[in-house]
Amino acid sequence: MTTPRRAPGGFPVVGIVGGGQLARMCAGPAAELGLTLSVLAEAPDASAALVVPSSPVGDHTDTEDVLRFAEACDVVTFDHEHVPADVLAALVASGVPVHPTPDALRFAQDKLAMRERLTDLGVPCPRWVRADTAEEVEAFGAEVGWPVVAKTPRGGYDGKGVAVVSSADELTDWLARAQEAGTGLLLEERVPFRRELAVLLARSPSGQAAAWPVVETVQTDGICTEVLAPAPDLDPELSARAVEAGLRVAGALGVTGVLAVEMFELEGGEFVVNELAMRPHNSGHWSMDGAVTGQFEQHLRAVLDLPLGSPRPLEPWTVMANVLGGDYPELYPTYRHVMARDPGLKVHLYGKGVRPGRKIGHVTVTGDDLADLRERAGHAADYIRGVVTE
Amino acid sequence: MTTPRRAPGGFPVVGIVGGGQLARMCAGPAAELGLTLSVLAEAPDASAALVVPSSPVGDHTDTEDVLRFAEACDVVTFDHEHVPADVLAALVASGVPVHPTPDALRFAQDKLAMRERLTDLGVPCPRWVRADTAEEVEAFGAEVGWPVVAKTPRGGYDGKGVAVVSSADELTDWLARAQEAGTGLLLEERVPFRRELAVLLARSPSGQAAAWPVVETVQTDGICTEVLAPAPDLDPELSARAVEAGLRVAGALGVTGVLAVEMFELEGGEFVVNELAMRPHNSGHWSMDGAVTGQFEQHLRAVLDLPLGSPRPLEPWTVMANVLGGDYPELYPTYRHVMARDPGLKVHLYGKGVRPGRKIGHVTVTGDDLADLRERAGHAADYIRGVVTE
Repeated sequence: MTTPRRAPGGFPVVGIVGGGQLARMCAGPAAELGLTLSVLAEAPDASAALVVPSSPVGDHTDTEDVLRFAEACDVVTFDHEHVPADVLAALVASGVPVHPTPDALRFAQDKLAMRERLTDLGVPCPRWVRADTAEEVEAFGAEVGWPVVAKTPRGGYDGKGVAVVSSADELTDWLARAQEAGTGLLLEERVPFRRELAVLLARSPSGQAAAWPVVETVQTDGICTEVLAPAPDLDPELSARAVEAGLRVAGALGVTGVLAVEMFELEGGEFVVNELAMRPHNSGHWSMDGAVTGQFEQHLRAVLDLPLGSPRPLEPWTVMANVLGGDYPELYPTYRHVMARDPGLKVHLYGKGVRPGRKIGHVTVTGDDLADLRERAGHAADYIRGVVTE
Repeated sequence: MTTPRRAPGGFPVVGIVGGGQLARMCAGPAAELGLTLSVLAEAPDASAALVVPSSPVGDHTDTEDVLRFAEACDVVTFDHEHVPADVLAALVASGVPVHPTPDALRFAQDKLAMRERLTDLGVPCPRWVRADTAEEVEAFGAEVGWPVVAKTPRGGYDGKGVAVVSSADELTDWLARAQEAGTGLLLEERVPFRRELAVLLARSPSGQAAAWPVVETVQTDGICTEVLAPAPDLDPELSARAVEAGLRVAGALGVTGVLAVEMFELEGGEFVVNELAMRPHNSGHWSMDGAVTGQFEQHLRAVLDLPLGSPRPLEPWTVMANVLGGDYPELYPTYRHVMARDPGLKVHLYGKGVRPGRKIGHVTVTGDDLADLRERAGHAADYIRGVVTE
């Protein structure tokens, strides 16, 4: 096991379970803040392991691996939400501070628990129900109208574990697996929405919270492809209510670290919450280049209970576009090309091998002409992917 | 020897000789760009070695150490200017691209060579002479007026190797050492100046160059303590001439990577060049937070011959203040305090132990009220140092 080498002067070691790109993007801010990172990585060539000196390889579902990793850390946080409850409980019992805490994290891990809690808090949600049987699916469809959205309560991401169905028959396999696991399925009304929004904020164990401006997220095939910060033409009153809901959720659930609240904006000035994530989130990547304090720096400050930084945007608009893997494994030549075409482009790559559709990086541009920024970010992402060739 | 683990997709390894804070501050941009760094570090706990996975320990004056280090690198650059000429020659002979090249670098390593070349190029300099004897010192003092500025041609930094003298007697020891080494001393006229400026730019092997706005640097006891970007109330015509001189020097000397040209602004709209540095420079730290492309990212792009990024400032003003070591070794509590006092503050610490007067970090703030930014940056730097306590 690599021992993290901490800086002199009383600076702590932040442990991150999981070596994906979210852990990787903490590396720069940690270095600047004088902090030491340690990452429990899936493999020696995990995204974060390529850039963090202390990156022991271990299994985040193995209690012994996680406890041994945590011994050298002053606080433990997460790159993803997949650490099992028993491992989290053992981690807390070991005495190391864990942020977000398992009590908060379960609402990001279990979509049924999340729906129940948000409904209790009076936060707007689509109509929903837990279904264990085909009869319950049929009853819900009859009540809210087909099609309905079915979700596995745990383990879904980027469109996986989500299905839009027009009858209970389409869920036969999912229901069988859910019955076996005893988890049930989450069914949600399919709300007609104008667009998707996200509230991103950070909250510290002391209760300090800071929210970035509400952003618009654009999804393609269930994957976020573009983020506009702030959300264009957003009604200020709706924006205030959305942020207030985010802060209320963070406080009520005791969230520590970054919280992303994904929302649907409905016609008529209302919103409903779609998903929660308790970690830096794709909808916040824009903040690395577009705000005084980026989400990765803020997450580190929050989990260490350091005072939070200003979320103020630096420019009127920031546009982020995800770079998805295409057919060409050699990215370096296309990357040169997009840099040459647009000196204002900020390119972020995750050190990951190319697989079609895989998130391998993102680009951002900031400025005052939104249409121009969207064209530039979109072109660069498409070009690196290999979708456009000029 | 640690082998750097490169990212898939054809991305190169950039080797940096020297593990100080300049190498450290390349780590974040390298990670974001998908590049791999490798650092030849002075010690396992060198500033950069704390944050770069591949940080073999070696001696930058030892040809064998440097050649072995360079074997795994696609390009080699520098954290400092102290690599000896014979080591540089061996490095170039080994076939690895070296940027800046030894041919350019010698003008940053040897102040007499620099003065000679700049004078040939018609770049404004203070009157100067090489002196080997007390008689030559006396003659120069009689010609330009006492006191004069004496500099050792090699190895000086942060006010070391510079003396202001009023007679040749004060240089007896320096002259003896210079005579023994055969290097001579550089004597310069002490020019009365309004303030100090710096032109910072990057130039790539292909000849592309990009300059940041001219900044004002404020020195205290020979150490840069504050940088104002851009230089307030700078005559646009003077600014253009200063940038033009910087670009001319970069092109004529074949500089690759970041070049800093330190200048004195004289009364009456003229300037003279004081020093050159061919690497990221303290006068450019503001760009990390205050410009679209920071100097560390730009240096990496330049030495790889990648297209350069935009040097456009993000806000009207950025102020950088250096954090010097004070009497207290425990920085973490004071760091918490300055973060709480000012959420807009960007704190950068180098992972270095505290020694009185040592550069251990810097802070920046950006915005539109210069006086306010100066107060905030100065207070934070003083507070971390322990000079103010409220």
